Amino acid sequence: VKSIRLLDYVPEGLPGPEHFDIVTEIFNFEESLVNLTPDSVIFRAQVFSADPYLRNRMKAGRHLDPLIPGEIIKGYTAGVVIASKNDKWQVGDYYGANLPLKTITILSGEALSKSLVWKLPSIINDLNISYGIGVLGMPGSTAYGGLIDVLRPLQGETIFISAAAGAVGGLVGMLAKSLLNCRVIGSCGGESKVNLVKEKFGFDHAINYKNIGSKEELIAALREVAPEGIDMYFDNVGGMHLEAALELLRVRGRIAICGQIVDYNSKEMANVPFSPWKMIYTQQRIEGFLCSDWLVGKKGNFHRDMPKFVIDGKVIVEETVFEGIESWPLGFQSLFTGGNTGKVVIRV
Amino acid sequence: VKSIRLLDYVPEGLPGPEHFDIVTEIFNFEESLVNLTPDSVIFRAQVFSADPYLRNRMKAGRHLDPLIPGEIIKGYTAGVVIASKNDKWQVGDYYGANLPLKTITILSGEALSKSLVWKLPSIINDLNISYGIGVLGMPGSTAYGGLIDVLRPLQGETIFISAAAGAVGGLVGMLAKSLLNCRVIGSCGGESKVNLVKEKFGFDHAINYKNIGSKEELIAALREVAPEGIDMYFDNVGGMHLEAALELLRVRGRIAICGQIVDYNSKEMANVPFSPWKMIYTQQRIEGFLCSDWLVGKKGNFHRDMPKFVIDGKVIVEETVFEGIESWPLGFQSLFTGGNTGKVVIRV
Repeated sequence: VKSIRLLDYVPEGLPGPEHFDIVTEIFNFEESLVNLTPDSVIFRAQVFSADPYLRNRMKAGRHLDPLIPGEIIKGYTAGVVIASKNDKWQVGDYYGANLPLKTITILSGEALSKSLVWKLPSIINDLNISYGIGVLGMPGSTAYGGLIDVLRPLQGETIFISAAAGAVGGLVGMLAKSLLNCRVIGSCGGESKVNLVKEKFGFDHAINYKNIGSKEELIAALREVAPEGIDMYFDNVGGMHLEAALELLRVRGRIAICGQIVDYNSKEMANVPFSPWKMIYTQQRIEGFLCSDWLVGKKGNFHRDMPKFVIDGKVIVEETVFEGIESWPLGFQSLFTGGNTGKVVIRV
Repeated sequence: VKSIRLLDYVPEGLPGPEHFDIVTEIFNFEESLVNLTPDSVIFRAQVFSADPYLRNRMKAGRHLDPLIPGEIIKGYTAGVVIASKNDKWQVGDYYGANLPLKTITILSGEALSKSLVWKLPSIINDLNISYGIGVLGMPGSTAYGGLIDVLRPLQGETIFISAAAGAVGGLVGMLAKSLLNCRVIGSCGGESKVNLVKEKFGFDHAINYKNIGSKEELIAALREVAPEGIDMYFDNVGGMHLEAALELLRVRGRIAICGQIVDYNSKEMANVPFSPWKMIYTQQRIEGFLCSDWLVGKKGNFHRDMPKFVIDGKVIVEETVFEGIESWPLGFQSLFTGGNTGKVVIRV
């Protein structure tokens, strides 16, 4: 059984393989099976997720829930049940979870009730298990909740999405298009991503922010494709993108703040200026959110709706796959260097 | 018939009587009555309102809907119907309205359908007609909508309200207390207002901001009465108050932005820095709003609920009354000099 540990906090800069330790321990399946207590389940991970939000947890005190150096990194993972004494779980069931990133996890009934582990739907098999960390997991619930319940689009409205080629941004745009016929404008880094976003994801427009030097230039580029401004902005990156969106936001406009990736490798997270006065007379809203309400089923009906959207082709899955647990640090790095399109998946 | 006109735009500073003109015109009631077209109504104003939002409309181009120098100022007013050829209005009906501030107004059926004029409930008479520009008018609907639908309080949450002795702030605090048993903290200018807010309005705590020199001092004063922070902030003033509230806002905290009165006499409206990153992990929301959705009945049920709240004593009416249309500029000034408590009413 293998696991990933953070060696020490990384206050700034891009973390690399040198900051992580892959630890191997002996695991005796037969012995574990014999000793399995009532209500316990053995989970075998098939994929690990690498997500931008983890970067902030690698800074001491930067987050309410920082990682602890030397302990196994807690993150999103998906796999299959290989043993169960729990009525709710059968051998062969596919699961998604937020757990310490370990290839084998034994959870007692009590530990299970305190952990975030959900059953994946019948469309899942060994080949598409990565959906459990993607469209049917954290990024999927982020896109679903952030679009449907935070931004609450009206038919035909205009939405701007940053990191549009990423795991969350792509899904947001596809849902906005397929469910609500929005005019969808994405921003992403590089011409191949522009093509992906337009051709495969079906966005109406895509802006290559690598050709953009300033907030003013971004505003001009947006005005070209949305002369009347934007009704919604789904913010994955912060900085210049957020400032331009605030400038272009129309009456009754909404901004969902999901990520601030431009700052994640910096020591301090930047403040952004806003105009409270403009927010009054335009009746605008800015809302920060986390996916947990939708992922645990407190809001909306993500676990029922999203598999349908996948089956009906309302969303297309895009992934960048890294092979082997040892590649996790590289997969994580790719989130910050633009090395990925869609969901970063580490097959373990 | 008398009316109030703005002489010229006032880009900055405190407007005074020298900026307004009270115009008198001859009005022949009998002749108007004879010439009254079908569906027309004659309204006689009994009170005019003076409200802070008008200040921004006195700056050219500062607002989507600026006042026009030389034309009658459009504002809130209430009074009684003195003639009607319209099935929906009877002589003696009390009304509230947003109309050019003129003591007599004749509206055709078509003009009526395009104007904001609402019928006041049966509790209204000549003595309490000012409720039509207060608790049952614009400030009432602002407090109602901003509290109930924008902030959406949970039982027992902590709310901070600036300009707590003013027309809107006082109502917000009373509703938060009487409907939702919130812990209510107000800020106001001066010890007599502190007493009013605590003794008459029933706030749990009141801070005299005139004793506060900086954002840091305000944060310290708030921490004393709300050591665990605030769940909601109802912003009437902006500036230091808004910045302190952003600092103290708890997980799932909400800010309703209603006014920015600290800036209204300035040429430019200030920006305020916020932390998008904090808004994500604390799932916070900032929302600007106008009362119109509730005042026209598009959201909530203000015109049914608020008279009940008045009858049941859930809100108490506080007013500062100015006599005569000529005193309108002084009433307006008092909003910025702290000369009023509760609603500023000009009896005409």
